[in-house]
Amino acid sequence: MTEIKMRLSTTLLPRHDQAISDRIGEADVAVVIDVLRATSVMCTALHNRANAIITCREVQQARTLASQLSPTPLLCGERQCKPISGFDLGNSPAEYTPDRVANQSLIFTTTNGTRAIEFAERAGEILAGSFLNLSAVGDRLADHHSVHLVCAGTDGELTIEDVLFAGALVSLCETRYQAQLRDDASLLARQLWCSWFPSPECVDPLRLTERLRETRGGKNLLHAGYADDLTRCARIDSVTSVPTRIARSPATFQ
Amino acid sequence: MTEIKMRLSTTLLPRHDQAISDRIGEADVAVVIDVLRATSVMCTALHNRANAIITCREVQQARTLASQLSPTPLLCGERQCKPISGFDLGNSPAEYTPDRVANQSLIFTTTNGTRAIEFAERAGEILAGSFLNLSAVGDRLADHHSVHLVCAGTDGELTIEDVLFAGALVSLCETRYQAQLRDDASLLARQLWCSWFPSPECVDPLRLTERLRETRGGKNLLHAGYADDLTRCARIDSVTSVPTRIARSPATFQ
Repeated sequence: MTEIKMRLSTTLLPRHDQAISDRIGEADVAVVIDVLRATSVMCTALHNRANAIITCREVQQARTLASQLSPTPLLCGERQCKPISGFDLGNSPAEYTPDRVANQSLIFTTTNGTRAIEFAERAGEILAGSFLNLSAVGDRLADHHSVHLVCAGTDGELTIEDVLFAGALVSLCETRYQAQLRDDASLLARQLWCSWFPSPECVDPLRLTERLRETRGGKNLLHAGYADDLTRCARIDSVTSVPTRIARSPATFQ
Repeated sequence: MTEIKMRLSTTLLPRHDQAISDRIGEADVAVVIDVLRATSVMCTALHNRANAIITCREVQQARTLASQLSPTPLLCGERQCKPISGFDLGNSPAEYTPDRVANQSLIFTTTNGTRAIEFAERAGEILAGSFLNLSAVGDRLADHHSVHLVCAGTDGELTIEDVLFAGALVSLCETRYQAQLRDDASLLARQLWCSWFPSPECVDPLRLTERLRETRGGKNLLHAGYADDLTRCARIDSVTSVPTRIARSPATFQ
């Protein structure tokens, strides 16, 4: 009998699965996924040497937190794809340049991303995944026996872009770690990825950008005037940073 | 501008989307989907001339209902794939022969199917869909402007077999009615169907049976000794009956 090294499960929409949320525990590593754009921004910010990212759900909570910290952190985040009044940075990876974020702490408020993080909060380890750091996340999952992927979705609805990334990671974990899929959601995600990107040669940022344009999150961004962010969030394996939760409340990533 | 004739949305797991459930109303037609095996059984029973199917969630509720009706209806349903003690019929389509069900009323208790029906209860019309009556359901959707597909799942988890059928119906409605997809869940379901069955020539019961074996529901049935039911539930377009809700509480189909 072959020893099963990794078991993998996927949540397509966090608020749907309280029972599964309750099953995530210390022994699990969770990957939170909000490809357009929260987790792509987190990867970019840490790649560009931000000190830490403190996540929170509410705008007012972000302001209160910022007023309590010294040196003053940058206030970052969005509502309905748009920057928040009085905040330093919005939710476009383009804003998170070394000039702006190196050696700074960020307070980051994002509705859907935060929901996914809260859903997985009992996990022993939480990583933030996006196409930017797909392979780097894959590397970090080595030696983990229980992996749970959490797609953030948007406003309580499933978004294909998150499921697509989950599928890419499922596929990677099957190939590299002979991961066993614990649920049909993982199988569904993998099938989506493999049907759109049937071989490694098909996987390129241009093609991925085209796919992202068809998704709910992609359409929202196009509508809000952020077409270039689709290209930015499709730069597969362009960074090696893997945002990792280092403190729980508020959830802080480094 | 082309007039949009049909808008279509999909729920992959009913208990996940209270907000969507609240949006389903009189103007909508809902298709409830529990391919393995509740909606396949319902199609078979009506095809074999059962009078009506009264659905309910609890075993005790089924017994109470049966004791109140004259002539006495057949008690039908399952728990964990197995027949219920003292019931007349289980949840295998094989049991629902004309001999057993013609001119009989059935009380049918099934956890997941009932959850899906309750989720969609505000719809003006509810149909039960399975691979057995795929085309017949497609015909019935003509002239409907707002269609909502509800996958039952199993024990609060998504099951691929239901998503696969939803995808088949999405694909049919796009081709035949130029349906516009309202959500990424519909797109995901369609993509699953089209990736496994890329052209009409690929669609045959044998291939479908093979796919069903890979699903959560399929594995449960194989484990419980019901391998033949996968073949029975894969007989695409073998019946023309479309179970249709004719009374609300308890939800009754004819």
